[in-house]
Amino acid sequence: MKIARFRVNGHVHYGVVGGDRVQVMEGNPFGAIVTTKEYYALAEVQVLAPVLPGKVIAVGLNYSAHAAERSKDVPEEPMIFMVSPTSVVGPGEPVILPYANTVEHEAELVVVIGREGRDIPEDRALDYVLGYTCGNDVSDRDLQKKDRQFTRAKSFHTFKPMGPYIVTGLDPGNLAIQCRVNGELKQDATTAQLIHSVPKLISFISQVMTLYPGDVIFTGTPAGVSPIHPGDLMEIVIEGIGVLANPVVGNFR
Amino acid sequence: MKIARFRVNGHVHYGVVGGDRVQVMEGNPFGAIVTTKEYYALAEVQVLAPVLPGKVIAVGLNYSAHAAERSKDVPEEPMIFMVSPTSVVGPGEPVILPYANTVEHEAELVVVIGREGRDIPEDRALDYVLGYTCGNDVSDRDLQKKDRQFTRAKSFHTFKPMGPYIVTGLDPGNLAIQCRVNGELKQDATTAQLIHSVPKLISFISQVMTLYPGDVIFTGTPAGVSPIHPGDLMEIVIEGIGVLANPVVGNFR
Repeated sequence: MKIARFRVNGHVHYGVVGGDRVQVMEGNPFGAIVTTKEYYALAEVQVLAPVLPGKVIAVGLNYSAHAAERSKDVPEEPMIFMVSPTSVVGPGEPVILPYANTVEHEAELVVVIGREGRDIPEDRALDYVLGYTCGNDVSDRDLQKKDRQFTRAKSFHTFKPMGPYIVTGLDPGNLAIQCRVNGELKQDATTAQLIHSVPKLISFISQVMTLYPGDVIFTGTPAGVSPIHPGDLMEIVIEGIGVLANPVVGNFR
Repeated sequence: MKIARFRVNGHVHYGVVGGDRVQVMEGNPFGAIVTTKEYYALAEVQVLAPVLPGKVIAVGLNYSAHAAERSKDVPEEPMIFMVSPTSVVGPGEPVILPYANTVEHEAELVVVIGREGRDIPEDRALDYVLGYTCGNDVSDRDLQKKDRQFTRAKSFHTFKPMGPYIVTGLDPGNLAIQCRVNGELKQDATTAQLIHSVPKLISFISQVMTLYPGDVIFTGTPAGVSPIHPGDLMEIVIEGIGVLANPVVGNFR
């Protein structure tokens, strides 16, 4: 099932996408999904970030080839950090660069948590997932290096595009994942290359912090990150989910 | 004004503390504070963490003597990171150590945000503060070193005691701050020694992420951090706020 969050006629709804239209659901998808008889053409709605997360948890250096390109050792355990939920934007929204620094795209599979859980065993971890979406973990490399902590470099407003849909029922273990910039293929990998799998990440993180419906996990980026500049168009493509496209804008301080 | 969040007869309220009793307020203190005619003796209520934060933002190495004791350079700009709101506990609640690692107390002045703000100028930053409380930024040094990112080491359930009250109208620029362990004075400083002041921190953070009512900022710890062990009692004392006491318990995995 493809779940969209969208605005139409000034109202925000969740809905189920089928073909070129979306069927409105009652409330939100974090519980029983009840559809209404109300449909809209996708062309007439604004698709929004598929969730406004409570927590945005991210994983560093979770693909070997990316760790190598950044000259980092692969962490033996998942290296987690958090970024501000205020950084989330939806499909088509601009990523606004606040400084003339080196800023890079990072294509990532994003897990959307569907149920509250803590100390979740790895073999039941996928029961806590509502679905998956595309994410772009936009990162200011200059500030990342300066701060050492990643929060500032990755938390600026608009730095976490997510979308277009939450897709349920996917196997997260072998999905093609790509990033194109201005149509040029920059990142091209599969989630089979994740060092720490999605069930492992959910179990690991839930041993530190309780996960709630709507929390999201950015699972790490593969090799091929590259600098972005005002005027660029970034596209994250994940098999079975779709394309998350965001233009880059400069509004330097 | 001293604002408490507390449980009595199975219900959770906010209230205004005066002497040995607390006057219930309507709703929460993030807006006009309207008191009711309902009073309880402080002795008959359970004082809770004064806020369940949306975001917990923390600042590293914000006192020179603490940076020196950890052999770190003082960051030129505030070094921010985030921890999980699920780590917050209130006065008297145990801090539960999940591993037999080196874990230390960190006394910190905590800012409770009262109004939504973004790109807040430093000279108006204090207008966005509801008040201040005591915090203990409990930190697993082994995991902090291993991960380099601080989120895991500082986000375990119970690792962020806060309380006992939110105190309004304080000048955050020169408050005595101490930590005692089993009655022995370990940390003894004043917030006048903060490298980056409270207004500076609010302005700086709000240029990265929008702040909302109930978000909290842990402003950094002074020198004197030391290991804690099961059976210890930690007390954070800040001038004008009170004492935040939490016992340490081991529940090793």
